[in-house]
Amino acid sequence: MSKIPVIIDVDTGIDDAMALVLALQSDKLEIRGITTVAGNQTIEKTTRNTIDVVEYFGRGEIPVAMGASQPLVRPQIIAAYAHGESGLGTAVLPKAEKQPEELDAVSFIKKVLEESEEKITLVPTGPLTNIAILLKAYPHIKDNIKEIVLMGGGAFQGNSNATAEFNIFADPEAASVVFNSGVKLVMCGLDVTMKALVTPDEVAQIKAIGNKAGDFIAEALEFYMAMYKKNANFIGCAVHDAVTITYLIAPELIKTRQGIAKVDIDGKDSYAATICDFRPWRDKEKDNALVGVDIDREAFVKLLMDACKNY
Amino acid sequence: MSKIPVIIDVDTGIDDAMALVLALQSDKLEIRGITTVAGNQTIEKTTRNTIDVVEYFGRGEIPVAMGASQPLVRPQIIAAYAHGESGLGTAVLPKAEKQPEELDAVSFIKKVLEESEEKITLVPTGPLTNIAILLKAYPHIKDNIKEIVLMGGGAFQGNSNATAEFNIFADPEAASVVFNSGVKLVMCGLDVTMKALVTPDEVAQIKAIGNKAGDFIAEALEFYMAMYKKNANFIGCAVHDAVTITYLIAPELIKTRQGIAKVDIDGKDSYAATICDFRPWRDKEKDNALVGVDIDREAFVKLLMDACKNY
Amino acid sequence: MSKIPVIIDVDTGIDDAMALVLALQSDKLEIRGITTVAGNQTIEKTTRNTIDVVEYFGRGEIPVAMGASQPLVRPQIIAAYAHGESGLGTAVLPKAEKQPEELDAVSFIKKVLEESEEKITLVPTGPLTNIAILLKAYPHIKDNIKEIVLMGGGAFQGNSNATAEFNIFADPEAASVVFNSGVKLVMCGLDVTMKALVTPDEVAQIKAIGNKAGDFIAEALEFYMAMYKKNANFIGCAVHDAVTITYLIAPELIKTRQGIAKVDIDGKDSYAATICDFRPWRDKEKDNALVGVDIDREAFVKLLMDACKNY
Amino acid sequence: MSKIPVIIDVDTGIDDAMALVLALQSDKLEIRGITTVAGNQTIEKTTRNTIDVVEYFGRGEIPVAMGASQPLVRPQIIAAYAHGESGLGTAVLPKAEKQPEELDAVSFIKKVLEESEEKITLVPTGPLTNIAILLKAYPHIKDNIKEIVLMGGGAFQGNSNATAEFNIFADPEAASVVFNSGVKLVMCGLDVTMKALVTPDEVAQIKAIGNKAGDFIAEALEFYMAMYKKNANFIGCAVHDAVTITYLIAPELIKTRQGIAKVDIDGKDSYAATICDFRPWRDKEKDNALVGVDIDREAFVKLLMDACKNY
Repeated sequence: MSKIPVIIDVDTGIDDAMALVLALQSDKLEIRGITTVAGNQTIEKTTRNTIDVVEYFGRGEIPVAMGASQPLVRPQIIAAYAHGESGLGTAVLPKAEKQPEELDAVSFIKKVLEESEEKITLVPTGPLTNIAILLKAYPHIKDNIKEIVLMGGGAFQGNSNATAEFNIFADPEAASVVFNSGVKLVMCGLDVTMKALVTPDEVAQIKAIGNKAGDFIAEALEFYMAMYKKNANFIGCAVHDAVTITYLIAPELIKTRQGIAKVDIDGKDSYAATICDFRPWRDKEKDNALVGVDIDREAFVKLLMDACKNY
Repeated sequence: MSKIPVIIDVDTGIDDAMALVLALQSDKLEIRGITTVAGNQTIEKTTRNTIDVVEYFGRGEIPVAMGASQPLVRPQIIAAYAHGESGLGTAVLPKAEKQPEELDAVSFIKKVLEESEEKITLVPTGPLTNIAILLKAYPHIKDNIKEIVLMGGGAFQGNSNATAEFNIFADPEAASVVFNSGVKLVMCGLDVTMKALVTPDEVAQIKAIGNKAGDFIAEALEFYMAMYKKNANFIGCAVHDAVTITYLIAPELIKTRQGIAKVDIDGKDSYAATICDFRPWRDKEKDNALVGVDIDREAFVKLLMDACKNY
Repeated sequence: MSKIPVIIDVDTGIDDAMALVLALQSDKLEIRGITTVAGNQTIEKTTRNTIDVVEYFGRGEIPVAMGASQPLVRPQIIAAYAHGESGLGTAVLPKAEKQPEELDAVSFIKKVLEESEEKITLVPTGPLTNIAILLKAYPHIKDNIKEIVLMGGGAFQGNSNATAEFNIFADPEAASVVFNSGVKLVMCGLDVTMKALVTPDEVAQIKAIGNKAGDFIAEALEFYMAMYKKNANFIGCAVHDAVTITYLIAPELIKTRQGIAKVDIDGKDSYAATICDFRPWRDKEKDNALVGVDIDREAFVKLLMDACKNY
Repeated sequence: MSKIPVIIDVDTGIDDAMALVLALQSDKLEIRGITTVAGNQTIEKTTRNTIDVVEYFGRGEIPVAMGASQPLVRPQIIAAYAHGESGLGTAVLPKAEKQPEELDAVSFIKKVLEESEEKITLVPTGPLTNIAILLKAYPHIKDNIKEIVLMGGGAFQGNSNATAEFNIFADPEAASVVFNSGVKLVMCGLDVTMKALVTPDEVAQIKAIGNKAGDFIAEALEFYMAMYKKNANFIGCAVHDAVTITYLIAPELIKTRQGIAKVDIDGKDSYAATICDFRPWRDKEKDNALVGVDIDREAFVKLLMDACKNY
């Protein structure tokens, strides 16, 4: 089977790092590039983290391009409360020599898409700023995108507030551009990602693997779990972003539901909510998304552990 | 056990009629009055339907007071598409002699509440206009209300559109006043009411009872099912409003979840959504609602059938 | 010429007091009652201030009824920053013996309107909460209202923020109810009231009158001017609320413009703006307001001074 | 005196054509390029019209680059009602041979700005889509922009509706990006452009000039006046877009007022309004715009006539 060509767009971030761990090790993906965006932390930090992760896991040949430092329309928010000052909690990686591409993320994605003979899958795990600018600056590029498999939103819930998930909340207008673009979406939102849980026992097992992959991951997840405990009195942690890669390399683990997804970009209480219409009497012609609703949690954790072991 | 004193506020409406059938026959409720509001149909029609139902089921002694003809702030919408021109589908009841009270609904509820020695439960099954005006015109009256058991909203869904349920959509500002009032709420929304289904077979069984109650109910539900089939290609029908009375007379049939419920009164796509915050890390001091999430469907249908048989 | 029957609805407030000074002394008005509302200060303080002013100016026979303590739909804001802790700046009036009516403001206005043979003019100089509740609780009462001459809004400006004037900002949904009610409006907003200026010299002249009216007014306006100076580096002060009474007793001093006025009750930046459509190509059938746009300032100040002298 | 280097961004459009007439003939401007955007008509038509105008007036050497066909975030609206099916009313120009640049508008502006040694003034007379995408895709480019002199908005009025002017209404989010960008703005909105009137007599005088410039302009303005007459019962026409060029080549004709301008991108009734805060007590540190408020109409018309004569 041929590999799936992808560009991963990240705001690394602890769970972005987990997504990268899965992706960098998989023989099912051909990573054409990684682009960065502000979100979990500032663009400087998310870019630095991304490069460090890529080199640490021995894939320094993959180009990394730096993207948007600010949301499309509204003022910026970041999520230092969840990912720490560095964006990777207390985990410390060797500082890589590698530098970002000269091209900015949008120009880089455009170039890769234009030069590819096959359509490419975009995998954004942060705010959708880069993808939105790409789609608006170069509308013809849509035809070169196979699908967008994203972490973001929640059909029925939020985390930044009762209705909004952080990636969407951080740039709702960009998300709206992407959701309305006509490109096929796979939305891995809180409905599925809050079920992609790793328990303290499992983190201990990852640590026990005893290699550099396991050490890094365990350290980062321990910080993440401590944050979940502190902020939400919640035991374990949800490895949100890794669900996107899981969908690509082990789609049988994810259950999805087809419907119309859009982003609320008006008002106050539901601003940045992702409205998912599954009503049987909706206009199904307008269906634009597969929305993740469940995951085989144990198989997901095994996937993550196996990825560690293989490093 | 002493009876629960209630005032029922209806926009009769097929499923309001079913709620009344349950309530009028129950020995667990002491109905201190019924008030009407525009919603499923105009105030003239919902009042006429209410009086006709009350007399048809032999409870002409219960006072009926006519309420708001228009929403609190926004322009009116009605739901003739679901309940037909009369509001009761094709079911035809004898025109009752009984007239509405001289007092308007708000003044009537105020009077009953003030004259009661016990706190009274309000049971609104239509738009919350009357209750909102009551609470704003006479804020002290709150202390005389035990709780508000309402049909409206949906924690995770709508029917008028993807996010808004009809009763809330028909008067979102009034709903917001009620949800923010500090009075304890039991919200029987689409999460539970869409599970309060009656099947065609069961409607046939109701018809087969062969008494005047069964004849009326079967006729009304047949129309209602035909509407569900036509609009939504849905077999059976959800008897939304009857869930409120079920909660009062057979609370063991309903599963609820505690949280913060509020009404979105801004924006476009989520305007009139009922936002229900169940996040473990919400501020639980602000919990104001029990939100119905499931119902023992078969026991519910049996309750309805038994009510019919007892007439 | 027969007197104009009015009910004045106030949130006294320095400039409400000035409006009352004009009204209580005028032989052109027949004041059927005064009602109070929260706004410049809490309902307890605005009611107390109103009663004190009425007695101080020798009109203790006019009934005063206490109204809404909270806005129609949204949470409360008050304007202590402009009117001081008491609501009357540093001016101190003897505490009157008089008590508010037993009837609440809404019930009081309803009663007066129903018992009157002529239509009555309502003159609200605070948030429109009472009037909105009245119109929603008793819609038939509209026919007994001649017109509503209000202080509020600004066709082209705000003071609470760039787009919203305080009285509307304090209860936008109530204002929307009143503006959409179909009752004829005279909107004395910032366009005219910011021109109803009194200068420090003129305040000194008022003080020099040397009677109890002049003493009180000068003291209150001195505080008000100091606030204008401090908050806005503005010399003099705008006696907003007094413009409504001026419109009734000396209409020749006020220039108005006819158009469609409505209240923005959505969104963020323009929430609570009063949108005034004067476009030549608007639908003139929808014209619902005369909007004050200019005033003969010197004649207005003379009116105020003469009122003082006559006490 | 050295010429002012500009890039003009147009959605030609009758009044865009008038702006171009002024600009193409002026010896005070150095036009580095013209870019197009959808607005008054579709991108194909506005681009075609622009090229035709440029060649007709003998400036075929100026590069024209085609820009955004759709707004930044929301669905598209166009203004065929005002500018006719072609976008130039009934005026017909010879079809030019000239083709648009290979580069899209955003890439073209970026290239010109980067290659220029001086800062360049941007002059958008249509929706601000291109400029917004430029600023978001290449944030560093801001430093190469001297100022943005735009036609759009209205401090105190709209034309698409009571609060929104067409160029802003056609892409409010793009406008918000531009208004919040930190680049100095000169906003020529309806406050000044509705005073930039040409009368039927003056159009007749333009026609009487008897050259190809006069013929075209008179024909286009006659159509435009007929539209004003029909839609608004208004005699004459406002040559909105030409005010921007007037500001650059004859700034003494325009009166401006300094303040904070922003675009309302929330809600319903004031969505797309340009909020201009001139309050003396605003935070003047945030002043970002000179807002045109008046024009010497007769001198403006003479400018236009002289431009015609000079062709």
